[in-house]
Amino acid sequence: MISLDKAIDIVLSNSNPLNKVENVELWGSMGRALAANVVSDMNMPPFNKTAVDGYACRMSDVKGELEVIEIIPAGSIPSKTVEKGQCSKIMTGAMIPKGADCVLMVEDTKEIGSNRIVFTGETLRANICILGEDMKTGDVAIQKGTTLSAQHIAIMAALGCTQPTVTVKPSVAVLVTGDELVEPNQVPTGGQIRNSNGHQLVGQILKANATPNYIGIVKDTEEATFDAIAKALKVSDIVILTGGVSMGDYDYVPSVMKKLGIQILFDSIAIQPGKPTKFGVKDGKLIFGLPGNPVSSYMQFEILVKPAIQKLMGGEPNTKSVVRLPLANGYKRKKVERLGLIPVLINDNKKVEAVEFHGSAHIFALAKAEGYIMIPLGESEIKEGELVDVRPL
Amino acid sequence: MISLDKAIDIVLSNSNPLNKVENVELWGSMGRALAANVVSDMNMPPFNKTAVDGYACRMSDVKGELEVIEIIPAGSIPSKTVEKGQCSKIMTGAMIPKGADCVLMVEDTKEIGSNRIVFTGETLRANICILGEDMKTGDVAIQKGTTLSAQHIAIMAALGCTQPTVTVKPSVAVLVTGDELVEPNQVPTGGQIRNSNGHQLVGQILKANATPNYIGIVKDTEEATFDAIAKALKVSDIVILTGGVSMGDYDYVPSVMKKLGIQILFDSIAIQPGKPTKFGVKDGKLIFGLPGNPVSSYMQFEILVKPAIQKLMGGEPNTKSVVRLPLANGYKRKKVERLGLIPVLINDNKKVEAVEFHGSAHIFALAKAEGYIMIPLGESEIKEGELVDVRPL
Repeated sequence: MISLDKAIDIVLSNSNPLNKVENVELWGSMGRALAANVVSDMNMPPFNKTAVDGYACRMSDVKGELEVIEIIPAGSIPSKTVEKGQCSKIMTGAMIPKGADCVLMVEDTKEIGSNRIVFTGETLRANICILGEDMKTGDVAIQKGTTLSAQHIAIMAALGCTQPTVTVKPSVAVLVTGDELVEPNQVPTGGQIRNSNGHQLVGQILKANATPNYIGIVKDTEEATFDAIAKALKVSDIVILTGGVSMGDYDYVPSVMKKLGIQILFDSIAIQPGKPTKFGVKDGKLIFGLPGNPVSSYMQFEILVKPAIQKLMGGEPNTKSVVRLPLANGYKRKKVERLGLIPVLINDNKKVEAVEFHGSAHIFALAKAEGYIMIPLGESEIKEGELVDVRPL
Repeated sequence: MISLDKAIDIVLSNSNPLNKVENVELWGSMGRALAANVVSDMNMPPFNKTAVDGYACRMSDVKGELEVIEIIPAGSIPSKTVEKGQCSKIMTGAMIPKGADCVLMVEDTKEIGSNRIVFTGETLRANICILGEDMKTGDVAIQKGTTLSAQHIAIMAALGCTQPTVTVKPSVAVLVTGDELVEPNQVPTGGQIRNSNGHQLVGQILKANATPNYIGIVKDTEEATFDAIAKALKVSDIVILTGGVSMGDYDYVPSVMKKLGIQILFDSIAIQPGKPTKFGVKDGKLIFGLPGNPVSSYMQFEILVKPAIQKLMGGEPNTKSVVRLPLANGYKRKKVERLGLIPVLINDNKKVEAVEFHGSAHIFALAKAEGYIMIPLGESEIKEGELVDVRPL
């Protein structure tokens, strides 16, 4: 049994970028991992431009009347130089004319006759965006490895990067073991229940921007388990198995993993829930054996598999969105030999509440969780009001 | 000029659920809004089942030797009743046999001969999940309006809801005005820049799980603006225009909106950035006029348009994920007549830092923002260490 930190280290140090890239349409790049730096092919802004609608003139002139010598719409090139006592009417985004060093906002001016204005504002500001102040030609605008969002779409659009190079989505196979399981389109009879776990994993894989390869329910025999894993390894970068990792008579997963030549790097973690979680590698492919109950499986995916997917895509696991908030009520536990993972929600007072669970198969409670906190190995209590780090789910 | 709260109220009170529904495949429901309650057609668990691998027996018997009378794999129905001095070996998820009221974990037992075991554990627990303890037949498992996540997929799978009924995605049109703009696949010349804003909005619409209808750059004339808005209104539930809403000579949007019979409900908001933001309605459709610069446009979409999309889909705007954290450095401003929207990031010490901007066209800074905070109208300073509410971006 190893610590969670150690388990994460082992998983990440065995997760190597796939180095398979493809070019996608701009809009289709949302959520994908950038595989090559986006470099600016131009200065941004590409010319001195006005940030407001108004009158371009000389700062030293603003106390007197100004003659309007030209109207400059956005997108056009000014034809006149602004001299002393003159100004050009200018629209937001347009190029600053020669001679001008500021733009008076239209709201801060008054027309006092045909083509004559005065400044009526209190504060004088330049209101000019200087050529290259946001980005210079050759600057790296977006770093390789970045997960692309709407804001990055704006940057790529501005720089003419219409076919960004992104990492190919890792293929993640899902195998579910358990003879009590039937698929959701079937009606369970006798001792059966429907398979919820495998489909939850598919949802998690989709959310992580990887490609699910749903193999489904595998019969609880050594041969079937062997064949299913072997088949999954051929076509996927990551193989997830759920169930069959505990100590039941029919839990063939560990022995089958060995027979397949999978190097098992750990076979249990000092966490609750999720202790029997296993991890192995073969030919650069990652194999996770997750517990069969949906809460453990969900949590272990978030903690171990998602960061691995991010690394396979060439990115870094996102840990930035952890927030520290006070615990609303105290939390106590009896057993302390494992690190505890506690699904929580953030209540209306911005305090953290543990979600009430009947057990780790309680999928209805899990849906209420917005994040989780950890209670360290050896500690039995977190006091009311104590600050806890909430990791989003 | 109205307050932001008032603006949000007006937008939301005019955003009515579309009541157009469709059935989608389970995996395809990720991120969609549920249009009808998911009701449980069964008890969960559907029978008393074991939470662990072990031996099902009577609690009163655990001090003595127990005879193993049967092996019960998951998915099968026990054939024997456990009597005094007996137990049945049982696999996680399997049905508890008659007569047993607890399951001894296999780790807490020792085989002491052929088909005989003793309990070696310290604490005795039932380890039984009781029939119906998670969900009872007829219970509402997921409420209408819920945005579906991987956890909900698990619940729907468990209950056999393989074709959930979800709201049809609202269609959101994007029109961009500005004669200085060219599309990303063109090389800007003279006073031109590429259109980043429209594509950023498409990304935001996709992320909000709506369907973008990209109409693109509209020529800066009254006629072209009229035609483009009229066409967009015919096919979309929401129309977003960016640019053309300020005080420039070529800003036809407000007058065109009136000519089209759009009832303008507000035409400026006391916020910085985003003051000239406009909102109108026509025949139940929503029209937003957003400022042309990408930072304002981005922020106004998040604050006004996204909650409207959520209401059109039959859900409630998500405000739960706001977190309260201390500000790393003080924040000061001179003008206080508008509510300030400040893009921020959360630093490694879990403190909030304002993102440094050159102005509201600075798309490169926006990409660093993880959320935003508000500084109220009339207030000029937030002191270092003061707690601020961070809304995620």
